[in-house]
Amino acid sequence: MIFFKNDYSKGACPQVLDALVRTNDELTDGYGEDEYCKSAAAAIKKLVDCENADVHFLTGGTQTNQTAISAFLLRPHWSVISADSGHICVHETGAIEATGHKINHVATKDGKLRPEDIEKVMIFHEDEHYVLPKMIYISDSTETGLVYTKDELAALRKVCDKYGLFIYLDGARMAMALTCDKNDLAITDYPKYCDAFYIGGTKCGALFGEALVIVNDKLKPEFRFILKRHGGMMAKGRLLGVQFEALMKGGLYLDLGRHANRMNSMLAEGIKAKGYEFAMPPETNMSFVMFEKEQVRELAKKVMFETYPIVTKTHQCIRLVSSWATSEAEVKAFLELI
Amino acid sequence: MIFFKNDYSKGACPQVLDALVRTNDELTDGYGEDEYCKSAAAAIKKLVDCENADVHFLTGGTQTNQTAISAFLLRPHWSVISADSGHICVHETGAIEATGHKINHVATKDGKLRPEDIEKVMIFHEDEHYVLPKMIYISDSTETGLVYTKDELAALRKVCDKYGLFIYLDGARMAMALTCDKNDLAITDYPKYCDAFYIGGTKCGALFGEALVIVNDKLKPEFRFILKRHGGMMAKGRLLGVQFEALMKGGLYLDLGRHANRMNSMLAEGIKAKGYEFAMPPETNMSFVMFEKEQVRELAKKVMFETYPIVTKTHQCIRLVSSWATSEAEVKAFLELI
Amino acid sequence: MIFFKNDYSKGACPQVLDALVRTNDELTDGYGEDEYCKSAAAAIKKLVDCENADVHFLTGGTQTNQTAISAFLLRPHWSVISADSGHICVHETGAIEATGHKINHVATKDGKLRPEDIEKVMIFHEDEHYVLPKMIYISDSTETGLVYTKDELAALRKVCDKYGLFIYLDGARMAMALTCDKNDLAITDYPKYCDAFYIGGTKCGALFGEALVIVNDKLKPEFRFILKRHGGMMAKGRLLGVQFEALMKGGLYLDLGRHANRMNSMLAEGIKAKGYEFAMPPETNMSFVMFEKEQVRELAKKVMFETYPIVTKTHQCIRLVSSWATSEAEVKAFLELI
Amino acid sequence: MIFFKNDYSKGACPQVLDALVRTNDELTDGYGEDEYCKSAAAAIKKLVDCENADVHFLTGGTQTNQTAISAFLLRPHWSVISADSGHICVHETGAIEATGHKINHVATKDGKLRPEDIEKVMIFHEDEHYVLPKMIYISDSTETGLVYTKDELAALRKVCDKYGLFIYLDGARMAMALTCDKNDLAITDYPKYCDAFYIGGTKCGALFGEALVIVNDKLKPEFRFILKRHGGMMAKGRLLGVQFEALMKGGLYLDLGRHANRMNSMLAEGIKAKGYEFAMPPETNMSFVMFEKEQVRELAKKVMFETYPIVTKTHQCIRLVSSWATSEAEVKAFLELI
Repeated sequence: MIFFKNDYSKGACPQVLDALVRTNDELTDGYGEDEYCKSAAAAIKKLVDCENADVHFLTGGTQTNQTAISAFLLRPHWSVISADSGHICVHETGAIEATGHKINHVATKDGKLRPEDIEKVMIFHEDEHYVLPKMIYISDSTETGLVYTKDELAALRKVCDKYGLFIYLDGARMAMALTCDKNDLAITDYPKYCDAFYIGGTKCGALFGEALVIVNDKLKPEFRFILKRHGGMMAKGRLLGVQFEALMKGGLYLDLGRHANRMNSMLAEGIKAKGYEFAMPPETNMSFVMFEKEQVRELAKKVMFETYPIVTKTHQCIRLVSSWATSEAEVKAFLELI
Repeated sequence: MIFFKNDYSKGACPQVLDALVRTNDELTDGYGEDEYCKSAAAAIKKLVDCENADVHFLTGGTQTNQTAISAFLLRPHWSVISADSGHICVHETGAIEATGHKINHVATKDGKLRPEDIEKVMIFHEDEHYVLPKMIYISDSTETGLVYTKDELAALRKVCDKYGLFIYLDGARMAMALTCDKNDLAITDYPKYCDAFYIGGTKCGALFGEALVIVNDKLKPEFRFILKRHGGMMAKGRLLGVQFEALMKGGLYLDLGRHANRMNSMLAEGIKAKGYEFAMPPETNMSFVMFEKEQVRELAKKVMFETYPIVTKTHQCIRLVSSWATSEAEVKAFLELI
Repeated sequence: MIFFKNDYSKGACPQVLDALVRTNDELTDGYGEDEYCKSAAAAIKKLVDCENADVHFLTGGTQTNQTAISAFLLRPHWSVISADSGHICVHETGAIEATGHKINHVATKDGKLRPEDIEKVMIFHEDEHYVLPKMIYISDSTETGLVYTKDELAALRKVCDKYGLFIYLDGARMAMALTCDKNDLAITDYPKYCDAFYIGGTKCGALFGEALVIVNDKLKPEFRFILKRHGGMMAKGRLLGVQFEALMKGGLYLDLGRHANRMNSMLAEGIKAKGYEFAMPPETNMSFVMFEKEQVRELAKKVMFETYPIVTKTHQCIRLVSSWATSEAEVKAFLELI
Repeated sequence: MIFFKNDYSKGACPQVLDALVRTNDELTDGYGEDEYCKSAAAAIKKLVDCENADVHFLTGGTQTNQTAISAFLLRPHWSVISADSGHICVHETGAIEATGHKINHVATKDGKLRPEDIEKVMIFHEDEHYVLPKMIYISDSTETGLVYTKDELAALRKVCDKYGLFIYLDGARMAMALTCDKNDLAITDYPKYCDAFYIGGTKCGALFGEALVIVNDKLKPEFRFILKRHGGMMAKGRLLGVQFEALMKGGLYLDLGRHANRMNSMLAEGIKAKGYEFAMPPETNMSFVMFEKEQVRELAKKVMFETYPIVTKTHQCIRLVSSWATSEAEVKAFLELI
């Protein structure tokens, strides 16, 4: 089977696996208080150019979103605004509401949140009979494979400052966002525009793990209590430090994202050349393509992929995802099928 | 000031107040285990023709919705579908999410939930990465002053049976729903179509209080634990029994709703006669009317009302609410102003 | 039946009932934003000599404890220390845990919390693997009918300041605490020693209602959001203001407590004179008396009371509660039975 | 430094690490729906002789306890009884209360829960004003290093059946429990006496991971929803299957526990021979030893260990933990120091 189902189905990239094997027999402090976590945190703070940030390591995306959002929404009646295609809205089995907080869903055309969306929510929520929106959740790249430009992020910051909202950015696919053609953000921009964000490892070369970076001082205190309270504090916490240390070394992290994007570009160009239509511009490592329904059934016999809920009478959208582990051979094999 | 702001600003209707005064010096068991609560529950079960129902008394609408929904969503990952104008979605400060449950918001044109809305939600929620919708929340009359017909309620029941969803009906304004011209439901229909519903007292003659009727056996066990857990079990619980006993006597409850509707009809006809437009048909005790913005400011000097978030360049919608306590004189006084 | 079962089984005292009847037909703003609530709040702030306090009105004790504690424990991992006989520990069906917070239970000999109890808890909770105790819950008078002296309250304040703990005091029976013989506190002492407390109405003359007084500025912001979120914001909020205005007038509130204590003193002296033993000193309006089991069964035929879980081979403890509504005749009737 | 601090500071045992490396480049389904998870689940069901069990894999102990207990306490007002030294009571930062459930703490002499403890709790909780205890939490071996005998487990089952309580067993150190001298349980006994239990990997050879075994049919439905809702569903779920498959092969899991126990026996015998006192009998892989305070300070310079909160005027208890990775050389080195 040709594999374009997702970007988290292989194990770790070689450098990360090697680091885990190499350090396996060491004895260190537990719960993230070891030297590897410290070293990885230092590397991350240097990379994003934010010495005052706090860095915490968690094992997965839903866990990170749940723990971070429940920690940053400082009062129980505070809510978070999200595009209704956001991962926290649909694909986390109510993990945010599980912590008692409401998500203010916003319908968007493409999965990106815009200042006017936020304005509308804020005007509607006028007093104590409503929840109090205090944060926005965005992902870069988005669940639809799109990226925020610097201007877009700056505009969000502006409206968030106007209303006293924190910005939390889900970077599950940050490596792809930062290395795609359309991107004009540097990784050092995230701490400038966001109050907190996470650098995704699971989808970008790690066996597992996400690095949460807290920029705003108000969001830092007592985070480790909340981490533990949500079952997110790993006993052998150094496993996360070891992996992120390896990923940060020599630009590996961004290289992995770049490769994923390059494979998707090659794939998308081939698909376009054959005249198929895209439901979303293939900006990063994902192609959302409309195929005739019969063709989708045929493809499914030889390719692993997921369908996407855009359907017409005749066509069905499918999602093709490249990763650091995708090969040119797989791209070519797919293109030969269509 | 002429008062059309809401239907919960006077105290109790005379019969209810009298019953409270008359029984004030009695000594009874606490926490709703007294004879008045038993008698009122028996009267309600008879009225709705459902001897097997469980009846519980609570003090207010948000409390009733929160307690009932958190009790009826039997697992923490179960969610409730609601029109996004539903009281639980917007006007309860996240009280449902506070209990850990997600609300599946549905955009509707008029505040009424329809089978196709439910179908869409159910198809979208396909596996354990999503919450599991297990209940719908509807209100009759709705927050927009509209009522469900028998056919509409039957159609909702059908789609809910298809997907295994409970129906919970918020009857804060049930007295108005059941006595309006458009209504074709009898109060005995609610137990036929709903798994649980509440008969609103606060807006229909009581000093305070709502009577929750649980029809479906699956939703009955251990409800009083949940009632207490949410701070909803009143020490002097008989106050609720005394009031509902009085309301149920001699058709008083429906009479109060009928009066409120009649006052609103008179008001709406007068407004229509003068050529104003309505944002919603004035089916029950509320009129949503578009006035020029300058006129809204003028009216506000002499009338207490609330604005409603429908705005055009020139006009603003205002909500006018009649109640059991509204007089013809007030209606006439308003009509003279426009 | 002679009634010594509890202090919340009659309706309202005459002055409170009269005020409710007198104001019944008025039309005021809802949700506690009316003139009666403002006037009652002003009267309370004057009485407790704390002009900067915030005053909120709620309908019952469990609701007040749940709402206040979940509002004041500002982070989800913060916990509250309580004597394990405290109302929040045993008699609220987990209402505090329902909001996500742990209670640190402390075994005490008599239901009173002491500085050494707090010290032990604080020393044990050393890092982020434990919850973070940030508040103590005490009640005055306690569930065992005892009161805190000024020295005891000052000592608690001292140890709480040492560890950065808020003091929240449950004053369900504050009227009795402040008017008993052993008491040396003035009502103006509560704001000096506590960060927040509530003045109980349900057990001291009101139909229902508790007045929460927030002294510490840190605990004030956005309280009304939390009140609404827990279903505790009454639509006809003025009912609470009207009642507390009446209770505060002319010292009525304390007079009611004084009467309850006097009835209990008379009762306790009579019981003592007949040679029975007390499980707790009868300091306020409750007597905990050991009777032979056969005698308990006999008494139960003529007196309404509750048993208390202190049992020996031969004896059972029963709780006798006097209230503002208890008469000398009832006391005498009881004494004639033993 | 000689290391006796805990049993989770090395990486994986060689067989587990090897399996992870060997399978690293494979592409499998995510979220635990791969062949490795299926194979590991089958091996576990065979090992425990319970074909009808459901097996789920999670990443850590606190996460497993939180997810399982919140899933198994089927109603929000249900509570779990635990020894107050239980991991969920003290060392999980309120993770159980975070899900809204109360823990009924029980003081015990040694960390083991006994039938009479349960009786006392059940008798005390009489009606809906209290939470409803519905589960007991026990750990085998306990946090104090002790094991339950077959008779003790059978006695707990009996009292739990009497009151309708589920038994959930935390097997973080199950490998040690089952292979210690005092043990008379077979691993096949757990499904006979427990409704659910977990087989700990983190402390017994895995890089990370726990295998939750659900025996009682009532506790099985929709578990994966709850797993996801708590952020516990690993994207690369096969990592857990791969590890447990390796651990289950050829008795490796129990062998690792046996080694840990043997190292602790050797250590304990050496310590006893030198005349030191034990705070707990060293039944499994932990020794709780009283040393003079000065000696504790000296030891801390050369040995990594934790202190335990048993202190006398002159002595301090320290906890020494052996693991599958402890060597005889380390034991000898320690014994030479004392």
